[in-house]
Amino acid sequence: MRAVDIIIKKRECGELTSQEIEFFIKGFTNGEIPDYQASAFAMAVLLNGMTAFETADLTLAMARSGQVLDLSKIVDLAVDKHSSGGVGDKTSISVMPMVAACGLPVGKMSGRGLGFSGGTLDKLESIPGYRVDLTTEEFKKQLKEKGIVLTGQSLDLAPADGKMYALRDVTGTVPSLPLIASSIMSKKIAAGAQAIVLDVKTGLGAFMQTLDEARKLADLMMDIGRLAGRKTVALLSDMNQPLGHAVGNALEVIEAIETLKGGGAPDYREHCLHVAAHVLVVGKKAQDLEAGRALAEKCIADGSAFEKLCVLVEAQGGAVTYVHDTSKFERAKYVEVVNAPQSGFVSQIHARGVGEASVALGAGRAKKSDSIDHAVGLIIHKKVGDQVQAGEPLFEVHANDEAKLAEARQAVLTAHQISAEFVSPLPLFYE
Amino acid sequence: MRAVDIIIKKRECGELTSQEIEFFIKGFTNGEIPDYQASAFAMAVLLNGMTAFETADLTLAMARSGQVLDLSKIVDLAVDKHSSGGVGDKTSISVMPMVAACGLPVGKMSGRGLGFSGGTLDKLESIPGYRVDLTTEEFKKQLKEKGIVLTGQSLDLAPADGKMYALRDVTGTVPSLPLIASSIMSKKIAAGAQAIVLDVKTGLGAFMQTLDEARKLADLMMDIGRLAGRKTVALLSDMNQPLGHAVGNALEVIEAIETLKGGGAPDYREHCLHVAAHVLVVGKKAQDLEAGRALAEKCIADGSAFEKLCVLVEAQGGAVTYVHDTSKFERAKYVEVVNAPQSGFVSQIHARGVGEASVALGAGRAKKSDSIDHAVGLIIHKKVGDQVQAGEPLFEVHANDEAKLAEARQAVLTAHQISAEFVSPLPLFYE
Repeated sequence: MRAVDIIIKKRECGELTSQEIEFFIKGFTNGEIPDYQASAFAMAVLLNGMTAFETADLTLAMARSGQVLDLSKIVDLAVDKHSSGGVGDKTSISVMPMVAACGLPVGKMSGRGLGFSGGTLDKLESIPGYRVDLTTEEFKKQLKEKGIVLTGQSLDLAPADGKMYALRDVTGTVPSLPLIASSIMSKKIAAGAQAIVLDVKTGLGAFMQTLDEARKLADLMMDIGRLAGRKTVALLSDMNQPLGHAVGNALEVIEAIETLKGGGAPDYREHCLHVAAHVLVVGKKAQDLEAGRALAEKCIADGSAFEKLCVLVEAQGGAVTYVHDTSKFERAKYVEVVNAPQSGFVSQIHARGVGEASVALGAGRAKKSDSIDHAVGLIIHKKVGDQVQAGEPLFEVHANDEAKLAEARQAVLTAHQISAEFVSPLPLFYE
Repeated sequence: MRAVDIIIKKRECGELTSQEIEFFIKGFTNGEIPDYQASAFAMAVLLNGMTAFETADLTLAMARSGQVLDLSKIVDLAVDKHSSGGVGDKTSISVMPMVAACGLPVGKMSGRGLGFSGGTLDKLESIPGYRVDLTTEEFKKQLKEKGIVLTGQSLDLAPADGKMYALRDVTGTVPSLPLIASSIMSKKIAAGAQAIVLDVKTGLGAFMQTLDEARKLADLMMDIGRLAGRKTVALLSDMNQPLGHAVGNALEVIEAIETLKGGGAPDYREHCLHVAAHVLVVGKKAQDLEAGRALAEKCIADGSAFEKLCVLVEAQGGAVTYVHDTSKFERAKYVEVVNAPQSGFVSQIHARGVGEASVALGAGRAKKSDSIDHAVGLIIHKKVGDQVQAGEPLFEVHANDEAKLAEARQAVLTAHQISAEFVSPLPLFYE
């Protein structure tokens, strides 16, 4: 078998066999197949597509390119939850303690933020001491003993995916459904997931801007799950406006904590309860969504979900005092409340615009090597559909630099549209 | 400007500007743009195409990636002739002395053979001492003093093309009309050509197997010529069966010499006269094709074309005694005449089959690193349309190894088809 023949077959729109895909990914992982062949292959896949079978084979080949975690001796059913990334998306930080408190052990390896959407690891590192670099052994031990883990992806999981993603980023081969879907699913499978809940975002602040694209991605990932023997459920959720009120790192952690204490932004709370209900059903802790939701609500009401977050933070070396008293979090030097320039109904809060403003404040990374300022960010007071009076607080900018504050203020104002006429709120979920 | 954005633009079927193409080729040549970006770019071009404007820009950018020869002080009009490669194609070895003898100075940088078609340089090296590694200065001096040069491509001509071709070969990005056309034309332009005659082969033994593909390639190269300000003429010629009788290295040189002496295979002689007539018209030595052809015939009849070959061989250090007495050429150890297994009309002599048999005998290279056996090859006695009796000589195998002889005999027999019914000869030219 030769790499060039596999590229040619895909170039000619042929369907690759499992053996061909395995050969290519294995060779790419160990360096026998050079980057220049892999990038030509990726471009051929992007332009000519892949069937669900090929995509499932690609996913499994990438998952097996490194260590595949076996959690079967630790938990009855290893459940994972993945969000395709968005602005203000701190879902994992609330959902994982909820479901763990309901008796479903969950261990998750999360990613860093890049571009306009934040990463769970960056947010968690707002809590002093919180470790995101657990070894595989530490991961397993904590999952067994505490029933909850939230850490970074260890380097030896799906190395082919890491290598391929870096290459795609510089060769114009990112926006390919088979490559995106296999990238996500290979990491979940390598991390030992037997059942997976996918939260696919769609809208102005999502990677998939249209509902149609998001649905295609969700369908393809469910196909992969089915073909790879993993129970997979996908939700399509809105990412036209930021999720919740807070955008940033410490600001989002505080919002997640408040939600576990029974408060928080209504849309974010609702989003988390819905995702948690799905995870509980997939994890066989609830018969149906209604029962799952009731369980999740109970865990908030009785404080057990909040307690589980404290267990998590303590187990990973974080300052649990911050969780109990969120005023301990480092605050930005400047906090400016920006008022509505006119009265009306909020008709748009462009999620990408807000996300980019947050990155410009220092809350995210434009490049991988950028460092993060955990204190800065934004608080969005009004959501789409809300009525607002001129002069009433519209949003807050938390900044450590006056010039950046002014820029962010302008950018976030631009992201807002206020209509004279009534505007319906955005749905949280589409399907 | 970023390489990745240029790749993305082509991925999205955009038309690249001259500046973008120049930037990409310049960066690729000096190593700032890595191979993995160039291969993704090549795949996007292969699958999404390029306009004639883009292809002309690509050609000029590659031509300018190294030294561009300026022959304007040496000749009135620098004319070059290119054949897209075929089996038994020794056209340059006869045509160049013909046109040079008619008073049109011609200097050509030729290539080596790879795959089933032979290379002019390999053939010329059958003449002991013949140098194909002239420096640029030697090239110019000989063109001025002798009016004829036939040597290898010096390394500094269109280096981007050499680098790109090597990459395309291993990334499944060879069969793209814009990439093929720009590769050919960039070398001609870098070698100083002001007017170009293209002999595009089509058929079973050609790179372009169908007339339609060959016509598209010819049209695109004429467009490039026009946009780049080079007078360009293209002929479409047959490569379903080998050209002439001889396939090999020394065997082909002998056939070319015989043709210049007034003999040779009728189809090869006719092919050469037609190409020479076009070169003489383009080179402004003849008013029209008829006049060009008459000139070329006269140069054969009066011995001046043969004399010009002797001048060429002597100027480049070759043993001119071999040209005068072709029995001096080294002969293969075994020469077997294979007779026709049945009577009828020859209906096919699969050029690729014959070419591959010749390579297997050692006359060509399967890989770049292979060495060449100059003595071996084939003599095809009957051409398509010829009547043959069972037991009459059909072809000869010239071999230096008995096992290879047996293999070649079988392969060339398989390449022949003999029909009971009348078969018309193949045309030499289509357009």
